[in-house]
Amino acid sequence: MRFDDLNWMDLETYLAGEDRLMLVVGAFEQHGYLSLLSDVKIPLALAETASKKTGILIAPPVNFGCSPYFLSYPGTISLRVSTLIDVIEDIIRSVYHSGFRRVLVLNGHGGNDPARMRLYELLNCLPELRLSWYSWWTANSVIWIAEKYNLKPAHANWLEAFPFTKVADLPARAKNPPRISGFLSAVDSRQSYQDGSFGGEYEAENQIMDEIFQAALQDILHLLKFE
Amino acid sequence: MRFDDLNWMDLETYLAGEDRLMLVVGAFEQHGYLSLLSDVKIPLALAETASKKTGILIAPPVNFGCSPYFLSYPGTISLRVSTLIDVIEDIIRSVYHSGFRRVLVLNGHGGNDPARMRLYELLNCLPELRLSWYSWWTANSVIWIAEKYNLKPAHANWLEAFPFTKVADLPARAKNPPRISGFLSAVDSRQSYQDGSFGGEYEAENQIMDEIFQAALQDILHLLKFE
Amino acid sequence: MRFDDLNWMDLETYLAGEDRLMLVVGAFEQHGYLSLLSDVKIPLALAETASKKTGILIAPPVNFGCSPYFLSYPGTISLRVSTLIDVIEDIIRSVYHSGFRRVLVLNGHGGNDPARMRLYELLNCLPELRLSWYSWWTANSVIWIAEKYNLKPAHANWLEAFPFTKVADLPARAKNPPRISGFLSAVDSRQSYQDGSFGGEYEAENQIMDEIFQAALQDILHLLKFE
Amino acid sequence: MRFDDLNWMDLETYLAGEDRLMLVVGAFEQHGYLSLLSDVKIPLALAETASKKTGILIAPPVNFGCSPYFLSYPGTISLRVSTLIDVIEDIIRSVYHSGFRRVLVLNGHGGNDPARMRLYELLNCLPELRLSWYSWWTANSVIWIAEKYNLKPAHANWLEAFPFTKVADLPARAKNPPRISGFLSAVDSRQSYQDGSFGGEYEAENQIMDEIFQAALQDILHLLKFE
Amino acid sequence: MRFDDLNWMDLETYLAGEDRLMLVVGAFEQHGYLSLLSDVKIPLALAETASKKTGILIAPPVNFGCSPYFLSYPGTISLRVSTLIDVIEDIIRSVYHSGFRRVLVLNGHGGNDPARMRLYELLNCLPELRLSWYSWWTANSVIWIAEKYNLKPAHANWLEAFPFTKVADLPARAKNPPRISGFLSAVDSRQSYQDGSFGGEYEAENQIMDEIFQAALQDILHLLKFE
Amino acid sequence: MRFDDLNWMDLETYLAGEDRLMLVVGAFEQHGYLSLLSDVKIPLALAETASKKTGILIAPPVNFGCSPYFLSYPGTISLRVSTLIDVIEDIIRSVYHSGFRRVLVLNGHGGNDPARMRLYELLNCLPELRLSWYSWWTANSVIWIAEKYNLKPAHANWLEAFPFTKVADLPARAKNPPRISGFLSAVDSRQSYQDGSFGGEYEAENQIMDEIFQAALQDILHLLKFE
Repeated sequence: MRFDDLNWMDLETYLAGEDRLMLVVGAFEQHGYLSLLSDVKIPLALAETASKKTGILIAPPVNFGCSPYFLSYPGTISLRVSTLIDVIEDIIRSVYHSGFRRVLVLNGHGGNDPARMRLYELLNCLPELRLSWYSWWTANSVIWIAEKYNLKPAHANWLEAFPFTKVADLPARAKNPPRISGFLSAVDSRQSYQDGSFGGEYEAENQIMDEIFQAALQDILHLLKFE
Repeated sequence: MRFDDLNWMDLETYLAGEDRLMLVVGAFEQHGYLSLLSDVKIPLALAETASKKTGILIAPPVNFGCSPYFLSYPGTISLRVSTLIDVIEDIIRSVYHSGFRRVLVLNGHGGNDPARMRLYELLNCLPELRLSWYSWWTANSVIWIAEKYNLKPAHANWLEAFPFTKVADLPARAKNPPRISGFLSAVDSRQSYQDGSFGGEYEAENQIMDEIFQAALQDILHLLKFE
Repeated sequence: MRFDDLNWMDLETYLAGEDRLMLVVGAFEQHGYLSLLSDVKIPLALAETASKKTGILIAPPVNFGCSPYFLSYPGTISLRVSTLIDVIEDIIRSVYHSGFRRVLVLNGHGGNDPARMRLYELLNCLPELRLSWYSWWTANSVIWIAEKYNLKPAHANWLEAFPFTKVADLPARAKNPPRISGFLSAVDSRQSYQDGSFGGEYEAENQIMDEIFQAALQDILHLLKFE
Repeated sequence: MRFDDLNWMDLETYLAGEDRLMLVVGAFEQHGYLSLLSDVKIPLALAETASKKTGILIAPPVNFGCSPYFLSYPGTISLRVSTLIDVIEDIIRSVYHSGFRRVLVLNGHGGNDPARMRLYELLNCLPELRLSWYSWWTANSVIWIAEKYNLKPAHANWLEAFPFTKVADLPARAKNPPRISGFLSAVDSRQSYQDGSFGGEYEAENQIMDEIFQAALQDILHLLKFE
Repeated sequence: MRFDDLNWMDLETYLAGEDRLMLVVGAFEQHGYLSLLSDVKIPLALAETASKKTGILIAPPVNFGCSPYFLSYPGTISLRVSTLIDVIEDIIRSVYHSGFRRVLVLNGHGGNDPARMRLYELLNCLPELRLSWYSWWTANSVIWIAEKYNLKPAHANWLEAFPFTKVADLPARAKNPPRISGFLSAVDSRQSYQDGSFGGEYEAENQIMDEIFQAALQDILHLLKFE
Repeated sequence: MRFDDLNWMDLETYLAGEDRLMLVVGAFEQHGYLSLLSDVKIPLALAETASKKTGILIAPPVNFGCSPYFLSYPGTISLRVSTLIDVIEDIIRSVYHSGFRRVLVLNGHGGNDPARMRLYELLNCLPELRLSWYSWWTANSVIWIAEKYNLKPAHANWLEAFPFTKVADLPARAKNPPRISGFLSAVDSRQSYQDGSFGGEYEAENQIMDEIFQAALQDILHLLKFE
């Protein structure tokens, strides 16, 4: 259940019996051979599955994140870190004003982590608000599966190659991860990463991807209990 | 053609032969009986139709706008005006960096107009950039149709009741527009507007809505020529 | 009655019996053959006449607005949109703190509209505050007069050529309005508009200008009732 | 010669032979028995006299400054320090863009000093710009006259009681300056300063005020040489 | 070698032959029984040892970081995330202007991570700048030692109990880590963490601490090569 | 007593019987032949002596200030004025939250004065807070000693040449102060001031420096009474 099929009266009804919300924060950036919108698509797919099981609402996704290091790849749209932080604050304040009290942020992009600090600041001024933040690819449950199959998770490699993020054929042969030290500018980043993947296998079997999806889903269902 | 079905290589190919882009800027706010996401849905529907005809890309939509006056209606999410302006700047700078030079902003919400001023500021620092801004409901072509059918256009009345924004049955009887003077706070706004519509008919015949959609579409197709 | 002839004790006396204020927000920008300060002079003249009739105070004018598109005309001074919005906020908060509760903003420049959104935001945090915004040239009463005399209102044409804004002889012959599409940078703006007028007659008869002035004045007197 | 009697063509002519400008930055705040606009009126009177002698232009005045400590006196309007700094930056950037290269800021209010630091920052990015800042009451020439007549200069006492800032009768008897330690909040400030004067004589003989005005004028004429 | 024993001529000499710099970014926040300044002391001690071996300069430390969640513990001083980010930007821009081109940030506090994103943004505008960021407690080399001794690293437990951060006796008995889910406000944080340690042993043997210090030092010496 | 030898429990004990704090705000900038950190070292030395006599705590110093005009001297690190102001606000808000109510700012650098205005703004929102600001070199007590010995105080001359700020031999012969008019950019500043001293004697006898130190110390001890 997404917000867009509802009007405000539906929200009022919803809020009479529920104060939980899922907020998807993604990015629009190069993902090698995968969709530019992968970082929205993955957490949104998880949110939609979780919503079907729990009836908990999903706010409209934040389609942009912080990706300054990928700006030399055509198509990447990056918010300044100060902008993203303000966007997240405004959304949280608005939904708090509406009556939501427990918000699970489903983050799709590592570059969005700075927004977490603003959430801590908000908790000090919005009484009774509870917030959680879930970045699926950093979850122990997901990492464990990767290790089980001896696959190394990385940006734009097999880890993000779900059926719904694939928009082109993927190379059959694994990529040698480039050796990186320190921070890269956008120009250096493109020079180092070439096709955009951080290396390793480009694809894993569907069953592995399912396993990962299910593991993340279980985490989310657990987090939605706000215990 | 939306960005989300593409990877960055596709973008590179696209940019080799084209420098135009459509950017949908919406809002997430009360629309009476209509979808909370109406201000995204309408310009996005127009953009998708225009894209099918022209092959011009659509950036991922900005799902939030400035709606401080509707914050007392559950579900409304409002960005501060300073935040929205920064979001728009960051997006324009990013796509300019990618190589886009002609951007048509398809705006879905009157409260987003302040962002226009930042666009003028950007034009003074980004050479060869061309920008247009289209708010469909303010177009002469659309107003003329409304007048032809003797329908008064207003927020959350028939004007925005497209098949794809309707999420509930609409009242059969027209609403008496409340008398408003000056600016309203969120609290006063809800007290004045009650169900959220600014008054008049809640619904028009499908054929009228089609006519309006086509008129706006023609405007967009014309603007995309950037003549 | 302007603030500058008063000391704070006078203000205290005033506020004991009155909580209304007029605030003039102008611009300092090219106006073709007319004064660079036209956008302050016109609303200030209206405010002074209204003040004489009602005794309602006028705050010192904001002499600068948002005019990025005219920066290539010598003399134009433009505030960034973020700056103007903050100025307006600070003024409103200050006068609210003093005890004013009803403020009519008399705006002289279209580029200042973004500040309206901040006013809505302020209404949500300053209880009992009432705000109105009047841009004289957009008023139905004024537009109606222009239509009556078959004159097309536009920037720096006859519409703004009041006796007190004229600082040079005006061309006798009407100007062909340049054809503009999309947003213009400062450089393109100067190239398109040449002398700065947006076209049409440069001057109207004094009696017409009087009629317009009186119409706007009546609007203001009505708005000052805050009904 | 003030900007308001000119159009942009006049400015273009002016800039062909001259690159100097005077900018008055004032305040709107309690001045005891004197005009709330004293901090604009004094530097503006000086600027106008200097302009008559030199033909150097005066920009429209900044009518507001930083006066947080006086906000409990009715009528005081205070910009946040961050806002004032941005206003000054925007004005300087605009006039630099117009072609001005030497700007003398005539400051009327001690609380505006923070803006000086932004001017230093601007000098590092705007080549060939030269800036001076003159706060008349801190000038040696003025202090010397005060000492000569054994008068102690202070906010809202005789020092600022020029014929054009007087808007009420002034107390005949000198005021005992309150003993202040540390910074005062707006509330404490009003409690300490009562009528708003910082103490001492309320008025000096016209001839002394003339002498001070002339001394400041000579300073300004000298600074306008930008030697 | 710290900056404070040098004058600008020394810096000029230094920069003639070297362009590397270490910048310590710490925090001032509760660390249980340990010094409030632990997050400065640890990276600074590492920097000083590295400086003795390499001759590379250390900038004056940033003594404050982002610690909103600890504000209910007396003594904690927290910068807003937006402030910290600006501080880091200004420092990097200044040292870049001086001629430094390779900067290793030695971070002492996890809450400072958002500043990393601004560094990426800066790399896109400051040519030839190279930046690295080292948070000693997240280094594989350090984690490996902790695992070797079967000690669990956490905030304000044995991990940070170096001889130079101890300012009081430490409890002999290990602490049961509180169970935390989601983000904590400052109030909840104090209630959950009580004495401020995140749990586990309060102290480890000196030889272990030495081993950790040496491991981090080796990492730093390696990073200073900027290979 | 500095914060860094304490843990939060110590602070809690301290705050049970005391609500005063000293905050040192310095700069990191060229000081001619003297230490780049002179503006921290001097107020910190004063604070430490005062702390020994009174037991009043010293917060960790702010090691950076506003020095845009010295950026062309290697080693100078300058915060934008907006950044410094935010840093000071965040520190004051944090210590206020901890329970401090009387804060004496010991400022070491004239360029930091803009932060004073933010302190006034804070006093209007933080009840019962008391703030003082002491810039030792502007104190009458210090100026009087300089006059007694016929020494002219100036940046980076004898005035700041304390035993603990000297890091190199000082020229024996006094420097002719350069003639400056108006504001200087960083480039012009270096060209004008050459070695960085503003002129006059480079050194005074130790006994004079002691006298000055003691005078400033007495001022501080008096201010710490917050009478």
